[in-house]
Amino acid sequence: MSAFLAAGPDVDAPTVALSLNLLWIVIGAALVIFMQAGFAMVETGFCRSKHAAHVVSTNFMIFGLGFVAFFFVGYSFMFGGFSLPGVFGMDAPTGSALIKFGDWVFLWKDSPGLSGIGGQASTASVMAFFLYMVAFMDTTATIPTGAMAERWKWSSFVMWGLFCGGLYYPLFGAWTWGGGWLSQLGNNAGLGFGYVDFAGSGVVHAVGGAAALAGAIVLGPRIGKFDKDGTPRALLGHSIPMAMFGTFILLFGWFGFNAASTFAATDIQFATVAANTAIAAAFGSVAALFWVHTRTGKPDPSMMVNGMLAGLVAITAPCAFVQPWAAAVIGILAGLIVIEVVWFVERRLKLDDPVGAIAVHGVCGIFGVLAVGIFADGGYGGGWNATSSSATDGKGITGILYDFGSLGWGQLASQAIGALVICTVIFGFAFGFFKLQDKLTKGGIRPTAEDEIAGLDLVEMGVPAYSND
Amino acid sequence: MSAFLAAGPDVDAPTVALSLNLLWIVIGAALVIFMQAGFAMVETGFCRSKHAAHVVSTNFMIFGLGFVAFFFVGYSFMFGGFSLPGVFGMDAPTGSALIKFGDWVFLWKDSPGLSGIGGQASTASVMAFFLYMVAFMDTTATIPTGAMAERWKWSSFVMWGLFCGGLYYPLFGAWTWGGGWLSQLGNNAGLGFGYVDFAGSGVVHAVGGAAALAGAIVLGPRIGKFDKDGTPRALLGHSIPMAMFGTFILLFGWFGFNAASTFAATDIQFATVAANTAIAAAFGSVAALFWVHTRTGKPDPSMMVNGMLAGLVAITAPCAFVQPWAAAVIGILAGLIVIEVVWFVERRLKLDDPVGAIAVHGVCGIFGVLAVGIFADGGYGGGWNATSSSATDGKGITGILYDFGSLGWGQLASQAIGALVICTVIFGFAFGFFKLQDKLTKGGIRPTAEDEIAGLDLVEMGVPAYSND
Amino acid sequence: MSAFLAAGPDVDAPTVALSLNLLWIVIGAALVIFMQAGFAMVETGFCRSKHAAHVVSTNFMIFGLGFVAFFFVGYSFMFGGFSLPGVFGMDAPTGSALIKFGDWVFLWKDSPGLSGIGGQASTASVMAFFLYMVAFMDTTATIPTGAMAERWKWSSFVMWGLFCGGLYYPLFGAWTWGGGWLSQLGNNAGLGFGYVDFAGSGVVHAVGGAAALAGAIVLGPRIGKFDKDGTPRALLGHSIPMAMFGTFILLFGWFGFNAASTFAATDIQFATVAANTAIAAAFGSVAALFWVHTRTGKPDPSMMVNGMLAGLVAITAPCAFVQPWAAAVIGILAGLIVIEVVWFVERRLKLDDPVGAIAVHGVCGIFGVLAVGIFADGGYGGGWNATSSSATDGKGITGILYDFGSLGWGQLASQAIGALVICTVIFGFAFGFFKLQDKLTKGGIRPTAEDEIAGLDLVEMGVPAYSND
Repeated sequence: MSAFLAAGPDVDAPTVALSLNLLWIVIGAALVIFMQAGFAMVETGFCRSKHAAHVVSTNFMIFGLGFVAFFFVGYSFMFGGFSLPGVFGMDAPTGSALIKFGDWVFLWKDSPGLSGIGGQASTASVMAFFLYMVAFMDTTATIPTGAMAERWKWSSFVMWGLFCGGLYYPLFGAWTWGGGWLSQLGNNAGLGFGYVDFAGSGVVHAVGGAAALAGAIVLGPRIGKFDKDGTPRALLGHSIPMAMFGTFILLFGWFGFNAASTFAATDIQFATVAANTAIAAAFGSVAALFWVHTRTGKPDPSMMVNGMLAGLVAITAPCAFVQPWAAAVIGILAGLIVIEVVWFVERRLKLDDPVGAIAVHGVCGIFGVLAVGIFADGGYGGGWNATSSSATDGKGITGILYDFGSLGWGQLASQAIGALVICTVIFGFAFGFFKLQDKLTKGGIRPTAEDEIAGLDLVEMGVPAYSND
Repeated sequence: MSAFLAAGPDVDAPTVALSLNLLWIVIGAALVIFMQAGFAMVETGFCRSKHAAHVVSTNFMIFGLGFVAFFFVGYSFMFGGFSLPGVFGMDAPTGSALIKFGDWVFLWKDSPGLSGIGGQASTASVMAFFLYMVAFMDTTATIPTGAMAERWKWSSFVMWGLFCGGLYYPLFGAWTWGGGWLSQLGNNAGLGFGYVDFAGSGVVHAVGGAAALAGAIVLGPRIGKFDKDGTPRALLGHSIPMAMFGTFILLFGWFGFNAASTFAATDIQFATVAANTAIAAAFGSVAALFWVHTRTGKPDPSMMVNGMLAGLVAITAPCAFVQPWAAAVIGILAGLIVIEVVWFVERRLKLDDPVGAIAVHGVCGIFGVLAVGIFADGGYGGGWNATSSSATDGKGITGILYDFGSLGWGQLASQAIGALVICTVIFGFAFGFFKLQDKLTKGGIRPTAEDEIAGLDLVEMGVPAYSND
Repeated sequence: MSAFLAAGPDVDAPTVALSLNLLWIVIGAALVIFMQAGFAMVETGFCRSKHAAHVVSTNFMIFGLGFVAFFFVGYSFMFGGFSLPGVFGMDAPTGSALIKFGDWVFLWKDSPGLSGIGGQASTASVMAFFLYMVAFMDTTATIPTGAMAERWKWSSFVMWGLFCGGLYYPLFGAWTWGGGWLSQLGNNAGLGFGYVDFAGSGVVHAVGGAAALAGAIVLGPRIGKFDKDGTPRALLGHSIPMAMFGTFILLFGWFGFNAASTFAATDIQFATVAANTAIAAAFGSVAALFWVHTRTGKPDPSMMVNGMLAGLVAITAPCAFVQPWAAAVIGILAGLIVIEVVWFVERRLKLDDPVGAIAVHGVCGIFGVLAVGIFADGGYGGGWNATSSSATDGKGITGILYDFGSLGWGQLASQAIGALVICTVIFGFAFGFFKLQDKLTKGGIRPTAEDEIAGLDLVEMGVPAYSND
């Protein structure tokens, strides 16, 4: 045990940089995967104890179900047929066809499907990239489990997990991060850099929120949620502490979600991203606290939670492009929006969303997408888009507050187009899925009233969440 | 998808090193922020269920409330007018005036207030530094929420959060980490390197503990805590598991708290810091277990928790300067101290501290500050202080066990001065705040006896922590 | 505050690489230590509330108890007398004797016992290595606390913690990772590279599982677990959500457990390891879900948990050596194995294992060890073994699916030898310990039936886990 290492390995700086960048992606992926625990705690805490084993089990299994479908189908669908501009410094794709489903899983060497890939470095990069991407998909997949909680058949949930990982999430993903048409809007004059979404206010959260909305509509409200005259009743969650601990886990994981989306630690913009993320979370929670206190006279804990999450969701798209003051403003606005939308969904739309997923992920996700076109200051991003670059006088992503001309308005237009696609095509995709599933399933995708009143734990899972033997 | 990256970006070693160092700070900040979940679980678990929504909500909102005040006021106050020796290799300050409050938030480029800062690297460094610092502030801010739990008005708590982030924490912070007079004591002969506190046994924990003590005095004990003859009664916490899970989260986050306080991964002392931190935590918990078992005949779970936390708090100041055996000794002593002090506070001082924050953070924080002057072995630190360096024969921070002469005793004196300031000026600042607030608030800062007996959840928060609908 | 750093420190690439590698080990260690929280939640959640303070306290204190014993004895025992091939690029050992127990803790400088070590870099490397290693030991130590839960005296548990950290874990550790005879089997022709266990399916998990089996036998089943005719009864855990949250913490921490076992971020195989780890976890949980649903008609939540953990345990040894498809297959097989073995242990062996530790860690750990000899594809590993290298035509670790000749079968033989040693020698070591302890302890290591029926919390810990004062 005499001579422990006193000097580092004999490698050059680019090699160290590659290692560092891959490490950041892997750590980021681990943080995002840990967010599954956060979602599980928030959603379970906000639900009632008689359904708690069911709710927590959906949040638990979504990881594996979505993962398996993304592994075999979704990943290839999302990234197989499009260019991956800038990410990992990859070349343009050699062919325009989709790679064959599942081919990538045999990538070691002598892989017939991916023979162009050679060496350990390539393999490691693909593996890191897959891991980070599958974690993002699972975030989307877990969002509807909250809005649809307490009245959703387990069998239907299982199908959702496979559908989301294989097709639902990857569709909008392919159009944006996969290099598809939305990302290429910027090739048209007057549309800025095309649809830009740094870490997924739209790609992940609004897409998940759209499914949450679709599912909540198809299922209808929980028994007892609305009085005969349509007045909503509070169905209290069974553990406020559980929900708040989960929110802190989400805040923690969000640093991986947003800051590792630089895909490189050598792009030190990640530090700015991390700080902006925290700023929006803090201001979101404070704004929601003061707003709900003003409006109701009480500092409702569930709105503190939703305020922080709203700030986090909204900053996710613009986090790399805005100044700290703008992160604060985005957080504040999200904190106000989320409260009003939670009430609007419940009181006006008469929809039942036990955890507020539609407001938090759906509406604040859309707000985050649009915020890029408003607050982006032109200091970062867009280097991958040669066409736009020349047309933009060297500026990066720029919103209307920093360019009230065609660059800013064009960017906002691209963002609005993306938002519109989510609200129509993607929402329709989810709605169609749940509606079709409801038709094809014997008895529909909702448990019987008897089972719902008894609690889904014993009927569906076979065990109670809590036992006091 | 043919050619994934097989070689790293073309950068030089210093650029990679900068990226690596910033990454360590950002990961460290995320870990420290995650500690908020740990504090929330420990404090909520040790409190009673009828106050649990209130307690967890104070722990939840403190993050945002302290953050917002630090963002606008505290950060500038703490770092604006002083030199930042060594940190980030920054130059000496150009002026002695405070930077204008809030100026730093517009730091991208063309920032009028900070025009000397240029380029993305500077921006990223400032952002990372701010994020790490705001996380530390929030640790201080959350400490009194434990000692003051179950009998504190929400409105008073909100003011505390803003006060702590804006003024209370930054004052001692400015005098130490901000480059103020305590850090410059070493310019005087015979005071070692001045007040040294690697990661904040004093700056964070004892300062928080001082506020906890002040708050507990002003509020008085919970109804039922003491019999008529002054004998303390155990008011059992509602969840031992919750408190223990939270403690593990704190242990986990503490690696970011202490080890990332090198502000650089290229300063590989961080590895020694991390190991010392774990050593003190382990020995602290074991010492407390054996001590409480010996003294009471039972292995009290709450004392295991306090023993580990005591070890962590005490090693926080000396973690970079001591050998592994010293980390073990510091942990053991802290584990013994915390038990005796918990009992002393309760039985002699007749103070009610539901979670033991005064003993854990206050007294063990002070012990950690003094431990630097005792156990530091001269092998690290002090390079920033040119004056001292020449006077210290090239040694780093040195305690009396390694230099029984003027260097060691001088260091211990500086540490004692810092400790004294916390016990007097800083304690007085907190005491004055709570006392004044108590006078100015209608009905004082303590809820009515009726509300306290009913539980603060329904009265103050409007919802119960737990519901079994 | 004018000139924040705009360029990195002036260091060369090997220095940055050293920093990066140490950082990865420290972050990895923190993640593994955080797994203690995961184990605590899973085991406590699966137990009954009247024993919950006892169960969570064993999971809490095992960290410190094992740590202290490993610090003084186990670390030196495991690594003192053997070569550490490849790890940290260390030289061969200068002597064959064990280093004196505890010497390493005085390693700063002028250390008599370790005078060969010089300089800060060596110190930091030793500290990082110790920290990572102690975290692994504690994982082993906490495994029996699950299988022996609800019927184990606290005093006996304390002895186990010290025994495991000092002797039990380090024995097999010395024979494998410490460079002992099992790791050197490859010097014999026809035994591949000797026993290979990348991150410890055997060294950590099966060794822990062997102790779990031994302890469960010595203690016997809980009162009420089996009817008079030997039919097992379900003793429901008191919190399914707690167990599932804990499992996500374990998944999160496992990225440190497996991926940081490269001991270097410059060995970018860590990215492949991380992805394989997630793949096995996902497929394990999905396979278990479908299998238990098929076999029982219900999607048992506890089997989802065990399925994910089974996949994680099984991939731990082969994670660096297999392709993604193989990781999926290993996960699926583990998910099926764990269910059948849980039932076999309960129904055939009539053993009571409240959390399934024997099946998850013991049997799936053995499966993982063998999986190296089956699925390893020859693309990585083995560079440390010069003898083998020449005999293996430049291939790395290779299983029978990639070499059906002597290389593959030899590797599988080495793996089988290691597995056999665990099932015999190591199991016997644990069984002898518990048996001896049972003899020497007044009244044995099991509490009285009266205490067990009342719940161990009040009798042994002096407090209830949950209180509703």
